[in-house]
Amino acid sequence: MNNFNFTDRIILNALHEDIGNGDVTTSALIPEKYISSAAIIAKSDLVLAGLPFAERTFQLIDKNIKFKPLKKDGSRVKTQTVIASISGSTRSLLIAERVALNLLQRMSGIATLTDKYVQQVKGLPVKIVDTRKTAPGLRIFDKYAVRMGGGQNHRFGLFDGVLIKDNHIAAAGGVWQAVKLARSKSHQLLKIEVEVKNIAEVHEALSVNADIIMLDNMNVSQMRDAVKIIRKKNPAVLIEASGNISLENIHGVAETGVDLISVGALTHSAPAADVSMKIVSGNLTRAK
Amino acid sequence: MNNFNFTDRIILNALHEDIGNGDVTTSALIPEKYISSAAIIAKSDLVLAGLPFAERTFQLIDKNIKFKPLKKDGSRVKTQTVIASISGSTRSLLIAERVALNLLQRMSGIATLTDKYVQQVKGLPVKIVDTRKTAPGLRIFDKYAVRMGGGQNHRFGLFDGVLIKDNHIAAAGGVWQAVKLARSKSHQLLKIEVEVKNIAEVHEALSVNADIIMLDNMNVSQMRDAVKIIRKKNPAVLIEASGNISLENIHGVAETGVDLISVGALTHSAPAADVSMKIVSGNLTRAK
Amino acid sequence: MNNFNFTDRIILNALHEDIGNGDVTTSALIPEKYISSAAIIAKSDLVLAGLPFAERTFQLIDKNIKFKPLKKDGSRVKTQTVIASISGSTRSLLIAERVALNLLQRMSGIATLTDKYVQQVKGLPVKIVDTRKTAPGLRIFDKYAVRMGGGQNHRFGLFDGVLIKDNHIAAAGGVWQAVKLARSKSHQLLKIEVEVKNIAEVHEALSVNADIIMLDNMNVSQMRDAVKIIRKKNPAVLIEASGNISLENIHGVAETGVDLISVGALTHSAPAADVSMKIVSGNLTRAK
Amino acid sequence: MNNFNFTDRIILNALHEDIGNGDVTTSALIPEKYISSAAIIAKSDLVLAGLPFAERTFQLIDKNIKFKPLKKDGSRVKTQTVIASISGSTRSLLIAERVALNLLQRMSGIATLTDKYVQQVKGLPVKIVDTRKTAPGLRIFDKYAVRMGGGQNHRFGLFDGVLIKDNHIAAAGGVWQAVKLARSKSHQLLKIEVEVKNIAEVHEALSVNADIIMLDNMNVSQMRDAVKIIRKKNPAVLIEASGNISLENIHGVAETGVDLISVGALTHSAPAADVSMKIVSGNLTRAK
Amino acid sequence: MNNFNFTDRIILNALHEDIGNGDVTTSALIPEKYISSAAIIAKSDLVLAGLPFAERTFQLIDKNIKFKPLKKDGSRVKTQTVIASISGSTRSLLIAERVALNLLQRMSGIATLTDKYVQQVKGLPVKIVDTRKTAPGLRIFDKYAVRMGGGQNHRFGLFDGVLIKDNHIAAAGGVWQAVKLARSKSHQLLKIEVEVKNIAEVHEALSVNADIIMLDNMNVSQMRDAVKIIRKKNPAVLIEASGNISLENIHGVAETGVDLISVGALTHSAPAADVSMKIVSGNLTRAK
Amino acid sequence: MNNFNFTDRIILNALHEDIGNGDVTTSALIPEKYISSAAIIAKSDLVLAGLPFAERTFQLIDKNIKFKPLKKDGSRVKTQTVIASISGSTRSLLIAERVALNLLQRMSGIATLTDKYVQQVKGLPVKIVDTRKTAPGLRIFDKYAVRMGGGQNHRFGLFDGVLIKDNHIAAAGGVWQAVKLARSKSHQLLKIEVEVKNIAEVHEALSVNADIIMLDNMNVSQMRDAVKIIRKKNPAVLIEASGNISLENIHGVAETGVDLISVGALTHSAPAADVSMKIVSGNLTRAK
Repeated sequence: MNNFNFTDRIILNALHEDIGNGDVTTSALIPEKYISSAAIIAKSDLVLAGLPFAERTFQLIDKNIKFKPLKKDGSRVKTQTVIASISGSTRSLLIAERVALNLLQRMSGIATLTDKYVQQVKGLPVKIVDTRKTAPGLRIFDKYAVRMGGGQNHRFGLFDGVLIKDNHIAAAGGVWQAVKLARSKSHQLLKIEVEVKNIAEVHEALSVNADIIMLDNMNVSQMRDAVKIIRKKNPAVLIEASGNISLENIHGVAETGVDLISVGALTHSAPAADVSMKIVSGNLTRAK
Repeated sequence: MNNFNFTDRIILNALHEDIGNGDVTTSALIPEKYISSAAIIAKSDLVLAGLPFAERTFQLIDKNIKFKPLKKDGSRVKTQTVIASISGSTRSLLIAERVALNLLQRMSGIATLTDKYVQQVKGLPVKIVDTRKTAPGLRIFDKYAVRMGGGQNHRFGLFDGVLIKDNHIAAAGGVWQAVKLARSKSHQLLKIEVEVKNIAEVHEALSVNADIIMLDNMNVSQMRDAVKIIRKKNPAVLIEASGNISLENIHGVAETGVDLISVGALTHSAPAADVSMKIVSGNLTRAK
Repeated sequence: MNNFNFTDRIILNALHEDIGNGDVTTSALIPEKYISSAAIIAKSDLVLAGLPFAERTFQLIDKNIKFKPLKKDGSRVKTQTVIASISGSTRSLLIAERVALNLLQRMSGIATLTDKYVQQVKGLPVKIVDTRKTAPGLRIFDKYAVRMGGGQNHRFGLFDGVLIKDNHIAAAGGVWQAVKLARSKSHQLLKIEVEVKNIAEVHEALSVNADIIMLDNMNVSQMRDAVKIIRKKNPAVLIEASGNISLENIHGVAETGVDLISVGALTHSAPAADVSMKIVSGNLTRAK
Repeated sequence: MNNFNFTDRIILNALHEDIGNGDVTTSALIPEKYISSAAIIAKSDLVLAGLPFAERTFQLIDKNIKFKPLKKDGSRVKTQTVIASISGSTRSLLIAERVALNLLQRMSGIATLTDKYVQQVKGLPVKIVDTRKTAPGLRIFDKYAVRMGGGQNHRFGLFDGVLIKDNHIAAAGGVWQAVKLARSKSHQLLKIEVEVKNIAEVHEALSVNADIIMLDNMNVSQMRDAVKIIRKKNPAVLIEASGNISLENIHGVAETGVDLISVGALTHSAPAADVSMKIVSGNLTRAK
Repeated sequence: MNNFNFTDRIILNALHEDIGNGDVTTSALIPEKYISSAAIIAKSDLVLAGLPFAERTFQLIDKNIKFKPLKKDGSRVKTQTVIASISGSTRSLLIAERVALNLLQRMSGIATLTDKYVQQVKGLPVKIVDTRKTAPGLRIFDKYAVRMGGGQNHRFGLFDGVLIKDNHIAAAGGVWQAVKLARSKSHQLLKIEVEVKNIAEVHEALSVNADIIMLDNMNVSQMRDAVKIIRKKNPAVLIEASGNISLENIHGVAETGVDLISVGALTHSAPAADVSMKIVSGNLTRAK
Repeated sequence: MNNFNFTDRIILNALHEDIGNGDVTTSALIPEKYISSAAIIAKSDLVLAGLPFAERTFQLIDKNIKFKPLKKDGSRVKTQTVIASISGSTRSLLIAERVALNLLQRMSGIATLTDKYVQQVKGLPVKIVDTRKTAPGLRIFDKYAVRMGGGQNHRFGLFDGVLIKDNHIAAAGGVWQAVKLARSKSHQLLKIEVEVKNIAEVHEALSVNADIIMLDNMNVSQMRDAVKIIRKKNPAVLIEASGNISLENIHGVAETGVDLISVGALTHSAPAADVSMKIVSGNLTRAK
């Protein structure tokens, strides 16, 4: 198991944010020596994501907390299912509770929504991918949750993938020039993806051997044409559909034959999954 | 204007997350000397929130960017409205764009949803308040957005308010003991709020002079009874309703006469507002 | 036991400050393998505060140090008493010594002075509270020490309590307006304390139902009058005395019947308690 | 003027500690556009220290604050003297006030006490020096204040000076061996100071050419003897007196002819100087 | 010009490392008000790299320093040439000098060595690229310097490029399986590069359509064969030579027809270029 | 063993730099449960330095990695020697590999070069010392490596030693004034070293009792004269030679009788030692 964990810093930040200089209620009311057992319970049907980070949250507060996962990230969980059981200092449990649940409810919410999109295109040779439209500072969690929901990740940020958009094209003087320039300036391990908005640009992108062509905000019929042209000219080119994808229209988009469909809503508009923590009755007893 | 800005650190974190060791596309394609004008545009009807933070995002990337807000946070904005105009280095505009929009779309989404809840109880003497169910690390933004949407903030974290919940009550041995203990242990500027789940506990909370009573997961009829009892016994006590509040049921809850209704969904399930940035045509010209 | 410890950062800062890139004397003179036992000893009568933080200081330098507390924070300790015994790497003991003692001497100094104030009002129904006049960056320690000395804490900072002072009153246009505004703008878990400097303002504060009234720099006779008026009008209001409190005059102030007396000197002018560390003879031997 | 300022981090830490997620009183009561003038005033006779850091505190909160120093650090200031005048946003003034004053009262307290020690030895060829017994994290300020009071600084920490104490001597097997070893192991720019507790050790330190000899906890008569022996044998050696120095006994110690007297109380037991900030009447007016 | 500068943190770290709690020599000897002009001078023939970072170093110490670059990064500079002239506070100049020069001498050393490699393959269609064998924490500078010397950058780190090495191949069960797996698991914007050590693996890499093939530690004759086979089978594949490249053998390697040659020595073994700073005579005068 | 380790921060920085948001190749190809054994092997003759930091690098990634050093820092190691054996998670080994080797190759390179200089002056009573010409941010490692190669360290930075250079002398108005001023302004534990460039300045330095005299850029004959004069006048003065020292000329410089020779090349121009990590065959097996 790796300890080198970028995610610890995010969790610690969230704990600082919530706890500040102390939980005034818990420190007043819960004796330091109390120990308890608790359960994390799904209160809605969900695809689970974030349990290892919930566990880590408790352990960053108190390394003696025992956390026993009962479900795995990526699995479908029915409402009322116990997801994990936890035991240890009652104070620690109560102090860490909210941050752990906030992580879990957000990530499971994203995984659950991603799963719904994935189900819509079941059987079709297409991948659902995320975007950079994530909660600021939480991208590593948001993208993890997409994978748990059966989606795939697009580039992580501006640094690990070349994606040429309309403004870049305008600055370079056209699709052809932009792809040419990008290839000569970026390192050899990066493919060149270019956004096109009409068939003329599709041809231009093909002529300069773009590695990936993104069909931006096209309607289904335009996409169908574009896919046909690209497949004929160069079957090695990947095709991505992007823009205003919804649960309603994604199946139609997938049927055009594109390889990838990117969906911003996965990470910017997923409603939280409902999860809660309960102190299990009978265990709110003094530690010996 | 204050410079001492906790929010800068959050924005810088988000910029690091997105940019890493550089925007490979923009640095390849946009000459360093290009300057542009751009517009931030609403693509859906929304209540605006986060514009000063979007502005700050651009300025943290490039202090020479000019950012002119055209709408104020808290105002209702129709789709297609230009919210702000920006000008400066094209590179800087493109590099900061995504983080600025991610902040704006999240905060405006929260404000817009809050506004919907507020409209549901219009005319009734009740306040809509948020919870600690916020995106980890973004609470300061989430709570700001709630205010922009016409809501009010509950305590910020565990440190600036005493809120006694079921587990605290169990540990203390009852509502009476819990309130008593909390009052003696916390500093004098903090009121004591206690969660109650039935009428017996309402009576207990009143007997020990709790400052605020939270009716947790009660149905509307129970709440009505509780409000009556509390108002009769001690009109100075504040009453908060909490648990499973939705746009559908909030009006009914408000009519029970409670003072405050807390809604977790404001910050954990608000869909993003749709905002985008466009480079204004004709301005993608070389700086002299 | 909780690990999530804001105080670690302060201690690490202090260690960095003292040690920089290394203890040039100890690394030159003490072989790496030497182990020793040492004692922390009171060199003056004191009320002990800070021992867990002294322990933490040693452990942040060297997790293998054994630290055995022999006295508890909050207890009165006679000069020459051994407070704790420590054993482990001689280098580690010597490198951590100064920071550990600096923490202990400051906190015990504050606890000892607080205890003196508390003794002066023994038997009277009044609490001694601290202020925000603490050493910059050390407030969490200073306020802890006050509690160990038998005092109570006022708000921690500007964020967890509303305290309306003269300038706020002037800006708002009077005591009545100020309290009104503060109540409407701050979250419901915060009480409203207002500073008054004469009987007219006392009446105004009562008329607007301030939760706490601070009598600022009044003489004993004015305070007596103010207490009488407040108790008659609203027995639920808390009364705080503030300004120029000394060991000499505090008993008289307490006799006026106020609930709280705040004393800046507790944290800004407490002389350090005298504590030292001795390597116990016979134990400066090579580890096997 | 140098910007590279280690002290900024300490001040920012202190501001975070005090302000947390916001000044709830000031943000509720002071309109954002109000501007004011204020005065920082001495409320006791003092030697001023820390004014540039008080200024920096205001500017870290709000770079538009105008701060006009009227006295210089190191000067003697009578009670009721205005030390500085400040103007700008009323909110900023009130938010920064406490941290600025906490710095000023601590540093001026140290400078004032140092000055008292210095006056006790006026005319004698001796320097008053500080120790490492400083408030954790504030050493750079504490030592600055000592200089402002007319004292001199000893080494800053464990890294910039070799000071061999009893435990080091015991580990090395004697004064002679310790000095020898320290000289061979530390870089050539560092002198070797060694602590001695009797005349035998004085001889040993002289025989191995220690650069500085610290007379530790000797009485005045022993010190006199030691000074005589050292001066005769090697006039180049510096002599430091240390241990239980007070305002009462320092003159006698100085008369023994030592070069340096180190006083822990300067930084661990100086009572705070009394300074306050007043909003100057008539200026609490709305900014246009 | 962008302000969002990852490199600032590295420079500030280096300044802290060198300056610690102050330059004891300069603060003792140079009056605060002195101003000077200085020149940065090449003391050996070099390819310049790092001047903007040297400039930034001075400005992080003192924003009022004027820094006038006289040469551009990437240009060849003869010994004794003045590279930049600087003016401002004498203290600031002397305090920043060493860190600025340390950056400049390292980066110009790397650029100068890179240029030598580039000259060896002049006229051949091959690129010299760097590796991850950089000074820990300085990769962004090291890779910048390679570009200034006419080289190109390989991937920045483990996160922005897939490079399958022998251990990965062994774990996956062969070249074919490794490339297959890498393609399915990494995002679509990353090409797949695979290291091969013999002709059999070349064939395997071609059969699975690896995007880039790295010939690892092959001799020139093997490389020639490999290039022939690859070009024939798939001209779109990029070929990289790697392992034990020196100034002596690089021309021969380039003649095999590979596209890229990676050279670890560029960043791990470049001797420093010789640069120094001189205070220009006549300018060490008091500021008025 | 001490845990308080400044070097951890540098190593963590380097790991972040290399790993960013993840090793895309290893996470795609190496199953999480694989374990392996590996060997760190010298690929050139070298003086070993940095092994404890290489060990720490692996443990910061994964605390369960077993790292067994087979050679000690400071020892001469022949090419092909196994320096350490490591075992644990295959992923962890591969992810940490490059940073560990980058540290080891740099430090061993410095130690190896230092050793060469030391061998050139073998038998002569002179010490080889380093300078502040180190890689920015890595000074603690660079200076450690010099010690491992048999050299000694000069001051660490500007804060722990007074070294008066030509510009300081000019500002002070001469060698005499400069030394005088430095002695009065710096704390008593610091010696005063002054740089001189001719015999006249040697006399001036002697007349003011400089503790150390640095002969800057003198030729061997001038140095011989200077040494004679200094030894005659004051045998306690240390003499340092500095400027353009090479492996070729150092023996001649040492024969002049100076005490110290400082060599910038040790840390700015040492070629990397060649070290690599190999997964030992047969151990790339699934963990049970």
